[in-house]
Amino acid sequence: MVNKQSVSIIKIGGNIIDNPAELTSFLADFSALEGNTVLVHGGGKSATKLAQSMGLVPQIIDGRRITDAAMLEVVVGVYAGQINKEVVAQLQANGSNAMGFSGADGNLILSEKRNHPTIDFGFVGDVKKVNTSLLSNLLETGITPVFCAITHDGKGQLLNTNADTIASELAIALSSFYDVTLTYCFEKQGVLFDAEDDSSVIEAINPDLYAKLKAEEAIHSGMIPKLDNCFNSLSKGVKQIKIGHHRMLQNKTATYTTITL
Amino acid sequence: MVNKQSVSIIKIGGNIIDNPAELTSFLADFSALEGNTVLVHGGGKSATKLAQSMGLVPQIIDGRRITDAAMLEVVVGVYAGQINKEVVAQLQANGSNAMGFSGADGNLILSEKRNHPTIDFGFVGDVKKVNTSLLSNLLETGITPVFCAITHDGKGQLLNTNADTIASELAIALSSFYDVTLTYCFEKQGVLFDAEDDSSVIEAINPDLYAKLKAEEAIHSGMIPKLDNCFNSLSKGVKQIKIGHHRMLQNKTATYTTITL
Repeated sequence: MVNKQSVSIIKIGGNIIDNPAELTSFLADFSALEGNTVLVHGGGKSATKLAQSMGLVPQIIDGRRITDAAMLEVVVGVYAGQINKEVVAQLQANGSNAMGFSGADGNLILSEKRNHPTIDFGFVGDVKKVNTSLLSNLLETGITPVFCAITHDGKGQLLNTNADTIASELAIALSSFYDVTLTYCFEKQGVLFDAEDDSSVIEAINPDLYAKLKAEEAIHSGMIPKLDNCFNSLSKGVKQIKIGHHRMLQNKTATYTTITL
Repeated sequence: MVNKQSVSIIKIGGNIIDNPAELTSFLADFSALEGNTVLVHGGGKSATKLAQSMGLVPQIIDGRRITDAAMLEVVVGVYAGQINKEVVAQLQANGSNAMGFSGADGNLILSEKRNHPTIDFGFVGDVKKVNTSLLSNLLETGITPVFCAITHDGKGQLLNTNADTIASELAIALSSFYDVTLTYCFEKQGVLFDAEDDSSVIEAINPDLYAKLKAEEAIHSGMIPKLDNCFNSLSKGVKQIKIGHHRMLQNKTATYTTITL
């Protein structure tokens, strides 16, 4: 069997995006990674701030944010425009041949508008298909793809899409051709036993420990869909998943969480 | 001598961008073009509108719009985000494998910040270098590149750049490898003898006629830099330049202006 090439997919969230110094520090660590790399970035608070400055009122139903047409225009501008191009320009300055994408570009990520029985989420998409051949092609050309959390339905409609999901769907798709490591970078050192204690990082989580921690409510709220996503990705071929602070990318910290099956 | 492949580069301006029905009609005509195609789009009025709704005051010095840091953020969001991704999503729906770019993406268009002896234009860039090999590569993969009027300086700074200039610089660069036709689409049928008479289209302009019309002030203001650009492009290898309404792309009108040396 031929050894597969490897790809590192890194996802960064709002805490890095919202802090220019942190973003620059992350991008330096990211640019120093060797081999094939893919970056997925979330949105941060600037879309909400921009919407407020324009007088738009966020639509929230049952605690869920609704992406109406006006909000979609704002998030497309901020995610695919402002954040994506700022990241790409900085990576280029660092010597990474970055290229920024929404899912519409090259039909790289096709989604379908979420059809929920009771809630109309508006222009929100769930990933249906990754254009793996074009993506592999770009990687082979030495391109570092940088994805924002916007996809399309193939019928001309752009859709707001969860960045964690985009990262895991890209990881799953690329696993057919590459050994994929997926890393979620956020403000903590990893998943914590005790949310109040930053030093209580869980070094490794497997399904048994996950079930136990969920039952004890040590893991709750936002971390649950994130970890569900991780186990789903591992079961579909992703080699390794890590969660922690971006300092781990350059081995500046030995503390982070590894998710395993 | 081996026959070169051909590329059609089409530039559309604000009048098409600002009118959704007109944009959709243009994109249908554009998608039906055969062979290699590249689209360059200007910005239209939405960046100014968004800036106003945010309370930003346009900076104008000596009649020149200045791109300050706040305005740059707005134009990057609108041009590289909202307009670019809307165009790409519609082209994908039409069956064109469109991919949207700023000049930062893949370092496709490197610029330098304009250094004017008396006016500080702010974050405005003049094109220095087109990454022709990557661009040819993308065309050979069947990609239809869609460029917005944002470039970068390679040191991490995004720059607002004239869309007509981007179109002509891409045309000149690709002329080394392809027979390039450059078409400027706008709201008129072509360059007019009499600005008040839409039927007075000049079918062909060469340098002699251009000098004569400038002397008579039949051609003036915005049309002069546009035509200067055209003659410069032709002298640097671009095969053919046309100016007119987008209906000419699908031979729905026989009236347009051809610029020749």
